[in-house]
Amino acid sequence: MKFKKICIIGCGLIGSSIARAIKKNKVSKKIVSVNRSKKTNNTIKKLKLVDEASSDLKEMITDSDLVIIAIPLGSYRKLIFKIKNFINDGAILTDVGSVKKNVINLIEKNISKKNSWISSHPIAGTEESGPKAGRADLFVNRWCILTPSKKSKKKDINKLKIFWKKIGCKVDIMSQVKHDKILSITSHLPHLIAYNLVKTSLNIQAKEKFQIIKYSAGGLRDFTRIAASNPIMWKDIFLFNKINTIKNIDKFILNLKFFKKNIKNNNEKNLINIFTQTKKIRKQIIKFGQDINKPNFGRK
Amino acid sequence: MKFKKICIIGCGLIGSSIARAIKKNKVSKKIVSVNRSKKTNNTIKKLKLVDEASSDLKEMITDSDLVIIAIPLGSYRKLIFKIKNFINDGAILTDVGSVKKNVINLIEKNISKKNSWISSHPIAGTEESGPKAGRADLFVNRWCILTPSKKSKKKDINKLKIFWKKIGCKVDIMSQVKHDKILSITSHLPHLIAYNLVKTSLNIQAKEKFQIIKYSAGGLRDFTRIAASNPIMWKDIFLFNKINTIKNIDKFILNLKFFKKNIKNNNEKNLINIFTQTKKIRKQIIKFGQDINKPNFGRK
Repeated sequence: MKFKKICIIGCGLIGSSIARAIKKNKVSKKIVSVNRSKKTNNTIKKLKLVDEASSDLKEMITDSDLVIIAIPLGSYRKLIFKIKNFINDGAILTDVGSVKKNVINLIEKNISKKNSWISSHPIAGTEESGPKAGRADLFVNRWCILTPSKKSKKKDINKLKIFWKKIGCKVDIMSQVKHDKILSITSHLPHLIAYNLVKTSLNIQAKEKFQIIKYSAGGLRDFTRIAASNPIMWKDIFLFNKINTIKNIDKFILNLKFFKKNIKNNNEKNLINIFTQTKKIRKQIIKFGQDINKPNFGRK
Repeated sequence: MKFKKICIIGCGLIGSSIARAIKKNKVSKKIVSVNRSKKTNNTIKKLKLVDEASSDLKEMITDSDLVIIAIPLGSYRKLIFKIKNFINDGAILTDVGSVKKNVINLIEKNISKKNSWISSHPIAGTEESGPKAGRADLFVNRWCILTPSKKSKKKDINKLKIFWKKIGCKVDIMSQVKHDKILSITSHLPHLIAYNLVKTSLNIQAKEKFQIIKYSAGGLRDFTRIAASNPIMWKDIFLFNKINTIKNIDKFILNLKFFKKNIKNNNEKNLINIFTQTKKIRKQIIKFGQDINKPNFGRK
């Protein structure tokens, strides 16, 4: 099974990685991409990531049997009104966004019944952005979560599942609500906390920022990687997953206050309990192949 | 300049890395190590990390011209009372602990004026523990901060400086108070936050812990590395650097509440401002050689 024409809307880190992986694994006869900026379209043409690249939505989307939205969540609304009439009957429409519930409702309302709208979330990425940052192997061994709606056609869900598998993913199917809850813990909260930590460090040591950089190998450097992620994309994720995010912040603060109390009262037993509990998780993550089995992420 | 006999008290990750680096760089004629547990002494003998290893403090310390304490901060008090009469006149005594002020005072009071007590802090390590986890190159290109007291002899400060340089470090000299403040930001707060994040994730998703592990590549896995660090060692660090740690927690919570408010109020501008500011730091850390210049820490 091969697609005839896949259209990727937005060739950033994820979009361009999908393009590379499609080419590498020969998943489609043709790949095209739409990008607002001329510069991006020129870059991806130069890199030979796609067969055609342009800012003309209609031209790129027409005749595509798979359309993949890979732009920040905050730009979905405008996009969907522009493209809803260009999508061919029978085509599958998906996205790669990190939040599902609010987005799915928005799109489902506006899409013809002749299309299957099945949202995807490949859990992969780096702290870099843009088409040059993509990698053909970005999805290898990573999970991709599909969150179909009641209206999604079974055969299309299956087709999309095979697509992600062909470019390297392991696929799970999940409800939109569950997806947003789980990802708010495993991805959104860690990013938010990393941003907050780097900001706090800068606040405390504002006068001598250089010291923060110089001695960052003590732990801070790890957080700066995640806190270097795409600002627009992450702003949208927190806003689209607002309720879960705020709940998690509240729980985080509650736990942090408990931590503080234990430090204040020299409660060694409680502290060791926390640290012993968290230590176990690392081993399980490695055992489950979700991180590299080398100390310090294999860094020297 | 070569030492005659270096005694390492505690051959864990750091102690055993020092032993390996001393051998590799031929910094001492003889290396010995004291460890409470017979098992550790046998392990390091088998690994040929030292010339002699035993639990006999007196025998190991006698005739050493450099004694390195590499045990958790909470065990210093007991140790110093046991060893103070065994240290040879003229010998240098140092440690590798992560907190200085409270510790330095404790030791300085109890050490003969014939010894130079100069505290060291090599900013290096991994999430692993124990003598098998050590690496001869752990200190290469890492900063080592010396925090001498007024009583430390200049020639001995210089001798110790050369020692750390020989095993790969770049050396800085700093006041104890400044060290504890800077490191509370670049190392202690990140560890505390990582522990708290992993704990919070487990709390929220207690019923389905497996989901947390399965989808951890979205960000959480990065934090689990640091949250897998030695529980005893870190419990001590937070307690010995209590005042800085509590101040930092308060500032972190304040910033997090500001974050929450911006999310609640859809303040996109403020969010983007925070993320753009933190993104810059990553670049500077890489430019300054304090982290690997590869996306995702070079992980696949």
